[in-house]
Amino acid sequence: MRAMTLSPSNHFHPKSQTNNSPRKQSPNGINLNTMHPKPNFNQSNPITTKNIAPLTSFALNSSKTQNFNSANPPLVVVGSANADIYVEIDRLPREGETISAKTGQTLAGGKGANQAACGSKLAYPTYFVGQVREDAHGKLISEALEKGGVNLDHLNTVASVPTGHAVVILQSDGQNSIIIVGGANMSCWPETLSDLDLEVVRNAGIVLLQREIPDSVNIQVAKAARNAGVPVILDAGGIDAALPGDLLSYVDILSPNETELGRLTGMPTDTFEQITVAKCHKMGVKQVLVKLGGQGSALFIEGQEPMRQPIISAPKVIDTTGAGDTFTAAFAVALVEGKSKKEGLKFAAAAASLCVQVKGAISSMPDRKSVLDLLLSLIKTSGERYIARRRPSLLCALITTVKTFDIGDVAST
Amino acid sequence: MRAMTLSPSNHFHPKSQTNNSPRKQSPNGINLNTMHPKPNFNQSNPITTKNIAPLTSFALNSSKTQNFNSANPPLVVVGSANADIYVEIDRLPREGETISAKTGQTLAGGKGANQAACGSKLAYPTYFVGQVREDAHGKLISEALEKGGVNLDHLNTVASVPTGHAVVILQSDGQNSIIIVGGANMSCWPETLSDLDLEVVRNAGIVLLQREIPDSVNIQVAKAARNAGVPVILDAGGIDAALPGDLLSYVDILSPNETELGRLTGMPTDTFEQITVAKCHKMGVKQVLVKLGGQGSALFIEGQEPMRQPIISAPKVIDTTGAGDTFTAAFAVALVEGKSKKEGLKFAAAAASLCVQVKGAISSMPDRKSVLDLLLSLIKTSGERYIARRRPSLLCALITTVKTFDIGDVAST
Repeated sequence: MRAMTLSPSNHFHPKSQTNNSPRKQSPNGINLNTMHPKPNFNQSNPITTKNIAPLTSFALNSSKTQNFNSANPPLVVVGSANADIYVEIDRLPREGETISAKTGQTLAGGKGANQAACGSKLAYPTYFVGQVREDAHGKLISEALEKGGVNLDHLNTVASVPTGHAVVILQSDGQNSIIIVGGANMSCWPETLSDLDLEVVRNAGIVLLQREIPDSVNIQVAKAARNAGVPVILDAGGIDAALPGDLLSYVDILSPNETELGRLTGMPTDTFEQITVAKCHKMGVKQVLVKLGGQGSALFIEGQEPMRQPIISAPKVIDTTGAGDTFTAAFAVALVEGKSKKEGLKFAAAAASLCVQVKGAISSMPDRKSVLDLLLSLIKTSGERYIARRRPSLLCALITTVKTFDIGDVAST
Repeated sequence: MRAMTLSPSNHFHPKSQTNNSPRKQSPNGINLNTMHPKPNFNQSNPITTKNIAPLTSFALNSSKTQNFNSANPPLVVVGSANADIYVEIDRLPREGETISAKTGQTLAGGKGANQAACGSKLAYPTYFVGQVREDAHGKLISEALEKGGVNLDHLNTVASVPTGHAVVILQSDGQNSIIIVGGANMSCWPETLSDLDLEVVRNAGIVLLQREIPDSVNIQVAKAARNAGVPVILDAGGIDAALPGDLLSYVDILSPNETELGRLTGMPTDTFEQITVAKCHKMGVKQVLVKLGGQGSALFIEGQEPMRQPIISAPKVIDTTGAGDTFTAAFAVALVEGKSKKEGLKFAAAAASLCVQVKGAISSMPDRKSVLDLLLSLIKTSGERYIARRRPSLLCALITTVKTFDIGDVAST
């Protein structure tokens, strides 16, 4: 029996806000092996001060939005789909004992489904490749993803095992115990993935993987993506086992949280992170995106200075479930849209900050407008300090324009 | 927090078979307060020997079958509907621990839904009055009941609590720990039941209750039934709390298993059962139908000799889940069809025997034909011993007729 970490434990704790990154124009394409931001500091534009947030190039109503027929290659998430069954109790039952829960709730989840839902909520065309059974929990998941606009043409059904599910036993002392039924996530995958499924991978703009499905499936997907020149991000959450070298060799960005980083490298989590990450680089992954909980995130690219992104503080943290998935998926969306990694980190931090303010995983994932509004409010706060006393009318007009149409326009105002 | 017993723990263990009850003709109507069987031993009929099973008056294709518009008043089950989430693990998780289950399965259950499904599977028109939410588990239940032919016009939906569910943690040492989420079974019932719901109760042929919904609901239902002259059977399984006197005063037959009987009377389960049951009679219930597991069942009517029914042995016991519910519901079906209590006990024992040979609760409940076939096989076995050497042709013709048309005809052959 192998222990797994699941989306319910994939938490993210915004506590404070810092906002001191220089604005950088996004590149037109994606280069995931190295980062070459093209700074364009236009000093005549007051918004380009170092106090003003980057990520001003996200279209609110992107032409790519939910358009599966466009030339823009989709985000393809291959992974797990789970029914998360939360029960809230005072204490764990003993053997043979029957106890009543205070309350309970069953929600669609699983790191794969969560990340696909997030991609779609952020208005980027998103495919989910996974497996469920046509049972109550399978229907729960497919309805949740469908409602969120995820393309489910590659959500396959199996007959001999149940849809994956997890019983999350929330105890009143704050401890969570989790029982995972791998079901269709871990069993009944074809030995060789169908060409239909691999085709959608080859045609992706970016592929997002996690570790709640067999490594053999991830390896096939990552290999197909690499051969087609499609970048692969691997979220390290899921099965607690060594990462196969085969898989790592096809991965462009590995994204663990602190615990997963420690586990993968076999180094204590309090080791200076740069040393730990160096071990990942040695394992063959040139880029490591570490989710540091309350400390924000950091992207380590071999041979470069780490790129750090503090959290964007939430007024009140309600539930951190799914925040890690939101962060990873939002970062992937930013990259596939051609934004810089710095912009991607900021966008992801904003999405995660909104996620923790609402209960649940998929239900708490923010839509694109909310993320852009949050980023806008940061621009506004910073911008006010700079120009309020000089050109207040410009600020008002600017914010109205940005809100209604296209944050990308802000840069050239 | 009150402990409850749920359908998954409602087990029944057929171990041996005895078949020595005298055949009694069924009365035309139901008198649940006293039992007045009308023995009709026709000595010219070889099947009426004491070796031959009773319950020969069940029509295979009853005119009542699934005909909700007929003059035959339906079986009305008011009670719980649950999603039973089974997870099979080596050991319980510790606080904060995540473990993988070996397997898992989620099935429709709950004592109310189980008993309604059984009534309908036995081809008697059956209504279910209960509450679910329109969530994944609510859909699971309503689909299972609908598929089984249960009338769901009175399955109400609630919005603020989830459909009731239970996590059944099966451990490899054979222990089961259960976490129950009462949800829509225990909350959000209207203070006064709607007249529509009470009307179906008043028009019932028999009403079947359990203790997985609030006592206040059961009291209203039982009172409405009593005032309309409709007999009420209360299965004692469910909430582990004293039975309110109000409820007992409207109940015609109380049906506990041994554990429940001990709990209700406050007497040790190894007390001679007749003494224990006497306490029930003192509590105001004149008839007590005790399910004795491997010892079969016994109906205690105040002032009369107990009526005992041994189990009908199963070739192999696969899963006893739902066997108690099957027994109670089959007994109710027999009574509402006008059979004698003796016949009801036999019919119920046959249904329970078939139930334990298949995994699951609702999925393991036998259809009418299977129950009659089993009873027929008992007739055959007994009859063979009596007439095989004398009139073998009669035996063959008789069995063929019985199988195809109407077991009731056997009596007058």
